[in-house]
Amino acid sequence: MTYDIRLIAPSGYPHDVPAVRRGVERLEAAGHRLSGLDVLDRRQLRFAGTDAERAGDLNALVEGPLPDVVLAIRGGYGVHPLLPLLDYEGLRRLATAPVALIGHSDFTALQCALLARSGVVTLGGPMLASDFGAPRLDALTWDHVWHVLASDQAEVAWESPGTPAVAVEGTIWGGNLAMLTSLAGSPYFPEVDGGILYIEDVAEPPYRVERMLYHLIHAGVLTRQKALVLGDFTSYRVAEYDNGYDLPLAFDRVAAAAGIPFVAGLPFGHGPTKVTLPFGSAGRLEVSGGRARLVFAGHPRPKTP
Amino acid sequence: MTYDIRLIAPSGYPHDVPAVRRGVERLEAAGHRLSGLDVLDRRQLRFAGTDAERAGDLNALVEGPLPDVVLAIRGGYGVHPLLPLLDYEGLRRLATAPVALIGHSDFTALQCALLARSGVVTLGGPMLASDFGAPRLDALTWDHVWHVLASDQAEVAWESPGTPAVAVEGTIWGGNLAMLTSLAGSPYFPEVDGGILYIEDVAEPPYRVERMLYHLIHAGVLTRQKALVLGDFTSYRVAEYDNGYDLPLAFDRVAAAAGIPFVAGLPFGHGPTKVTLPFGSAGRLEVSGGRARLVFAGHPRPKTP
Repeated sequence: MTYDIRLIAPSGYPHDVPAVRRGVERLEAAGHRLSGLDVLDRRQLRFAGTDAERAGDLNALVEGPLPDVVLAIRGGYGVHPLLPLLDYEGLRRLATAPVALIGHSDFTALQCALLARSGVVTLGGPMLASDFGAPRLDALTWDHVWHVLASDQAEVAWESPGTPAVAVEGTIWGGNLAMLTSLAGSPYFPEVDGGILYIEDVAEPPYRVERMLYHLIHAGVLTRQKALVLGDFTSYRVAEYDNGYDLPLAFDRVAAAAGIPFVAGLPFGHGPTKVTLPFGSAGRLEVSGGRARLVFAGHPRPKTP
Repeated sequence: MTYDIRLIAPSGYPHDVPAVRRGVERLEAAGHRLSGLDVLDRRQLRFAGTDAERAGDLNALVEGPLPDVVLAIRGGYGVHPLLPLLDYEGLRRLATAPVALIGHSDFTALQCALLARSGVVTLGGPMLASDFGAPRLDALTWDHVWHVLASDQAEVAWESPGTPAVAVEGTIWGGNLAMLTSLAGSPYFPEVDGGILYIEDVAEPPYRVERMLYHLIHAGVLTRQKALVLGDFTSYRVAEYDNGYDLPLAFDRVAAAAGIPFVAGLPFGHGPTKVTLPFGSAGRLEVSGGRARLVFAGHPRPKTP
């Protein structure tokens, strides 16, 4: 299956030119048809264009023919200033159209707003530069995104040694933890009850991860979920001051306070290997014998010919 | 004037033993009577004691004789896990008692909760180890805290070159920006309308400061204030990727989006020089000819003999 893929750049400008080139070449070599390549040339300060230009990438989806896939080129920072500039009424069109918006990291903030304000389910998954353009293309990352786009029901399985048995159903949503917390208390934060929340982050020391999770507890978010799935937490350091405190301890502390199961080991985050997961559609999480499995359906998919 | 000062340790353990000693010695040399010194010996992981012990410091204020001043020993991280453990009904006593709780940094989260849940006005100001125990005691920091504690009406004036004229009245509140945003959308975040909000932060790159301020815009907080007063933003770095983007530009972008005056230059933050300011009582901000002045009254004060 090959797709019409339109690039968008809601966040930072692409600084890694070879990565961008590799990403474009690999997608085109696989038969996909790319559009929106002009966003790769925009640059204003640390952003991929002005706020109006970056919001325009999204608002352009309100009218005209739609691609199969809308792909963020990379993360960084830049979604937050756009949130008041989006045409949420017009973007409701995407909730029923056969189009999948894909990205992660800063993109998580956009996924929050699109679900909260337009009812649009999106996908957390690879981006052009950082993933499709990685020096070495990750096989799981590549295979899983096409599996999800091509399947009515998709799944991911991983080892989660020592995790007690879990069997829950609910709305699957999540992404970057800092982006989720950065919209708490705003109209861009989706109301998800009884969900299965997945999180990842990069370069956040354990005490900040703990603080962000307490934020989700205090804001009434985490305690309303059926389970928390932990993706990758990479590039962080502990200091001598931490005195034995580390990320697993932080998760233990917060799990006790939240009173819901935490399931570690999901291959999703800022590392090279990442699965593609829905933000806002239904699924089932099962853990048994130290093996976890997430099955989901009803996620956005391109039309099949 | 000398005071009964009780130490509390809601956050990190004191790692700088000479600083603690200097802080204690300077306060005692000035005639103040310190209690609660046992909190200085507690240590669990990166915290100054267990969550229950640290919450106990606060809940101990519900009964018995009160000191004149309750002083946090230092910041770090640790208030968030305590928030569900505090006796907010009992702590309402502090709202009418002649006692001043003082601190900053992580302490800001406690100030939010005490105002939101117990109606208690506190003070943002120096702490035992980091300020009273600094290698060189800062004269403004030292003088201003005693000025505020001894005065029905207190004030601070500073240079704010290039700032247009401002004259507003409202509730003065604020502190560490990351702590403020970390409680947005929770019952521990105070509802302040028409206020004068002051902020500071440390080691947060400009794009994160911008993101946090957008959080306060999106959560409906910043646009409801009459002015934002910018304290110190220290120990941050910009990268080559920032491409000319820097903190003043970030503030310009957010000020335009918020539509309220931003007044820079307040001597408050993680630097050595910091004034003492109320969190929750009334004041007036005036800027004229590049000079700013904040006057306030009704803040918590010890009894005068």
